[in-house]
Amino acid sequence: MRWSTLYAPTLRDFPAEAEAPSHQRLVRAGFIRQLAAGHYSLLPLAIRVRAKIMAVIREELDRIGAQEFLLPAMHPAEIWHASGRWDVMGSEMFRLKDRKGAQLALGMTHEEIFTSIATELNSYKQLPQIWYQFQTKFRDEPRPKGGLLRVREFTMKDSYSFDLDAAGLDAAFDKHRGAYLRIFERLGIPAIPVDASSGTMGGSGSTEFMSPAPSGEDLVMRCGCGYAANVETATSRLAPAPDEDSAEVTPFDTPEVRTIADLAERHDVAADRQIKTLVYVIDETVTLVLLRGDHELVEQKLVDATGAVSLRPAEPGEIHSHLGASAGSLGAVAVSDLPILADEALRGRVNMTTGANRDEVHLRGVDVDRDITVGRWLDLRRAQPGEACPECGQPLEEVRTIEVGHIFKLGTKYSEVLDAKVLDANGKAVPVVMGSYGIGVERAIAAIVEAHHDEAGIKWPVNVAPYTVAVVMMSTKDDEVRQAAENLYRQLSDTDVILDDRDARPGAKLTDVELVGIPFRVTVGARGLKTGSVEITSRATGETETVPVAEAAARVRDLLKN
Amino acid sequence: MRWSTLYAPTLRDFPAEAEAPSHQRLVRAGFIRQLAAGHYSLLPLAIRVRAKIMAVIREELDRIGAQEFLLPAMHPAEIWHASGRWDVMGSEMFRLKDRKGAQLALGMTHEEIFTSIATELNSYKQLPQIWYQFQTKFRDEPRPKGGLLRVREFTMKDSYSFDLDAAGLDAAFDKHRGAYLRIFERLGIPAIPVDASSGTMGGSGSTEFMSPAPSGEDLVMRCGCGYAANVETATSRLAPAPDEDSAEVTPFDTPEVRTIADLAERHDVAADRQIKTLVYVIDETVTLVLLRGDHELVEQKLVDATGAVSLRPAEPGEIHSHLGASAGSLGAVAVSDLPILADEALRGRVNMTTGANRDEVHLRGVDVDRDITVGRWLDLRRAQPGEACPECGQPLEEVRTIEVGHIFKLGTKYSEVLDAKVLDANGKAVPVVMGSYGIGVERAIAAIVEAHHDEAGIKWPVNVAPYTVAVVMMSTKDDEVRQAAENLYRQLSDTDVILDDRDARPGAKLTDVELVGIPFRVTVGARGLKTGSVEITSRATGETETVPVAEAAARVRDLLKN
Repeated sequence: MRWSTLYAPTLRDFPAEAEAPSHQRLVRAGFIRQLAAGHYSLLPLAIRVRAKIMAVIREELDRIGAQEFLLPAMHPAEIWHASGRWDVMGSEMFRLKDRKGAQLALGMTHEEIFTSIATELNSYKQLPQIWYQFQTKFRDEPRPKGGLLRVREFTMKDSYSFDLDAAGLDAAFDKHRGAYLRIFERLGIPAIPVDASSGTMGGSGSTEFMSPAPSGEDLVMRCGCGYAANVETATSRLAPAPDEDSAEVTPFDTPEVRTIADLAERHDVAADRQIKTLVYVIDETVTLVLLRGDHELVEQKLVDATGAVSLRPAEPGEIHSHLGASAGSLGAVAVSDLPILADEALRGRVNMTTGANRDEVHLRGVDVDRDITVGRWLDLRRAQPGEACPECGQPLEEVRTIEVGHIFKLGTKYSEVLDAKVLDANGKAVPVVMGSYGIGVERAIAAIVEAHHDEAGIKWPVNVAPYTVAVVMMSTKDDEVRQAAENLYRQLSDTDVILDDRDARPGAKLTDVELVGIPFRVTVGARGLKTGSVEITSRATGETETVPVAEAAARVRDLLKN
Repeated sequence: MRWSTLYAPTLRDFPAEAEAPSHQRLVRAGFIRQLAAGHYSLLPLAIRVRAKIMAVIREELDRIGAQEFLLPAMHPAEIWHASGRWDVMGSEMFRLKDRKGAQLALGMTHEEIFTSIATELNSYKQLPQIWYQFQTKFRDEPRPKGGLLRVREFTMKDSYSFDLDAAGLDAAFDKHRGAYLRIFERLGIPAIPVDASSGTMGGSGSTEFMSPAPSGEDLVMRCGCGYAANVETATSRLAPAPDEDSAEVTPFDTPEVRTIADLAERHDVAADRQIKTLVYVIDETVTLVLLRGDHELVEQKLVDATGAVSLRPAEPGEIHSHLGASAGSLGAVAVSDLPILADEALRGRVNMTTGANRDEVHLRGVDVDRDITVGRWLDLRRAQPGEACPECGQPLEEVRTIEVGHIFKLGTKYSEVLDAKVLDANGKAVPVVMGSYGIGVERAIAAIVEAHHDEAGIKWPVNVAPYTVAVVMMSTKDDEVRQAAENLYRQLSDTDVILDDRDARPGAKLTDVELVGIPFRVTVGARGLKTGSVEITSRATGETETVPVAEAAARVRDLLKN
């Protein structure tokens, strides 16, 4: 490629509205442009990176025996109703009607549609199958942000496995785990596999692949021992409850106390000796959710533990009509008409303080096991940095990350409702056991930049660089320079070389090469040529070496290999 | 690839609901499955064909200097309002609202969006540019049909050219015309370039590429001299009006006459001596449209000639209130308060018969030039097979075709309203001159099958075949057969070879190879191996040759080359 014919509109400055390093650099270096919030156009440089990422993903999926498909983006509502997800997906799913008034959805994911294809499978002899596609997904994100990090439409590689039994699913899941680790390594994304919630996917387990980055929106708790989990599932080991005697439940007045902190401050009750009483409406049922005063609820844990389809905090009116008091004075002591879910950290606690279900009155001396009818003990609280790792007891560390992949063991949730069954070896019809596996392609572009950049621009790893070598003609007027640069360009024509033949200031050209992030630059200038040499600069290390012109192509080839 | 691990669910019969040969064969041979009317899933075999088609298109576009982009599929309504096409596109454009209530469109085409990218161009020095993408288009077709022939979502290669002036556009248009002809030739699609209407695109001219097929929905008029045009634009040379004397306009009663045929039959007035009076509402104005009684209106010609944004036949009530009569007795004689558009075939005609604008009364002796105030003479009628070619006078032939590509000279329609301007050599800001160019990828798959099939299945041209050679192991039990087939498979591993290693009846395997349409089949059986030979069969010709095993791979390579 000749830079003079490439459309790569680089900008003088980082765009003011961009905060994430990848957003700033991808816009400034001419890779992307925003059409609307969450909708980006990819320009030629981005297309090259995207194609390389897709090629790596294809290779690794081929290696595990996956076959490529392409399914529709637009789906009849019926199939989403059949799985129950028409309702579950809520406002994140784009919906529309066609000219005949039929309801349609734009696919956020394709479990239902791939399962409909799998209904044609009929024998265990056809299993296992791994099917995938690269396809445009639409998601009505409440807050699109960060350039390509969180958008409303994007290319996803989604794959789906179909097996006869759980052991088959485990094998397909492990294959994908391995493939994903190889993919992220080849792409230069330092992804950590972590335990995660299955969310709206359902199923028995999932692993997320998280790439550390300050602009990431997902928190991961991890430990040196190898433990790592999304905050939505992370746990920690708690110190045992102190060995104290029970006391009597005693009400006391707490005027103007509204919060855990108020009670701690004015009545000297440490937060960890309080019971936090939250009121949720879970699938239409008003439910009390109890945590220790110093702990924070992870709503996703509540969803996962209850299998809730809908879940929301109760309104003040609902709270008052059920408990007779307002938030700030709520409690579960003697409550017998509402389900009560409690976090494990409260088990066996005595001498606790909680609201009395009378405004501005609390109770002290509460013995949780004695005074509260807990329906289910659950893990509901958010693990905090510094708490003990659940596996080894060392302090947990909190890391901001970007989710770059997510794999799910789905089980038979979709195959049962959509009737994807095969005959097993005994001739019995059984639902196929499924997994699903996703990587967002454009988010991967952003994640690579988040991990490989500096103030001057992007530092693409060789595997995914739009061009791997830039031969920079420092003058287009000087015949000798021009000829030497053209020669080198020709010699390197079997690599992803770009010749910077633009009629521009040498400084501007070098700045652009750094900004765009091409791994190796060969600078061809009059001064060097006087001694028969050119300079080769590595974008990753910043190191420059002076090399005889005749050896430059070979040296570049060496550098590209390592 | 080993067929035993390929997911290609072939069916015993053609699907009953399919009529088009491509639809029947693509479903039966396991290439596609329908999710809903107009929405198809592509299975692994189809993905391979699609990838080869896309590779050919990319190569030919690269050759004319085009650069690849990828733009969003979902667009804010504002940009479609800016071009005026939010209204023009009507019910063919899918529309929806996001969670905030903002109106969105799913892109049917991308003139607006690419133009918004082009607003960043600022100098004539950056021109010409040719930009393209492979992107999913959504169109709410009233009648999706024919499998991949007419669908509601599909991959389109759309490109857009940006030039300083009309001469630049002409060059870009010619480049695309050449590229398209090469593409269709390489894909095995016998496309004819024809003059066409620009429809909702606007602009000064367009060429469609039409592939003859009995299941096609578009009619083309063509002549041996090279003339070819879509019926929406095709014209023919008319015999001159007979040289007669004018007569006086005379009313006569025509009870129960409602149609041209009624009048011809009951009052002996040949259809070509009648004036057909149609009433249209064109952009809110009631307008009379006149044709010769034996001619048929092409509505698109009316749209193109008037530049109408909206156009519909008038309602009976509207007709009556403006003309005082019902359809069947309408005419334009002495009408002065409505615009009158007339087809050229009426010019200079005398002694014509037409409705009197009184129910069941007609007028004879009408001299069109004398008695009717024609506002504009236009070419409005449909050319008929057998009429004289407008260029050479030989009889025109009518051919059913599939539109496989369409290229448009757009001019400055979009760049003006969206403000895509550059400074010209004199420093003056001028709107860029645009063209747009499209090929539907999945329709191309269908068009290839329409042109290459027989009763047994598909006959893929080598360039686009999912696999080019099938090595068929006629027995999986016979060691010698197995080993010979595996050997050949290995020897051909640098080609797109598939080894049919399925544990199935030999007849079923041969049937599948024919159905799927693999160009060359190497049949490895025990009988042949006894004499050290295998059979090579060409799908295109049906010819089989017997070749020594040792020479088989070389012979296949030869065949693939030619």
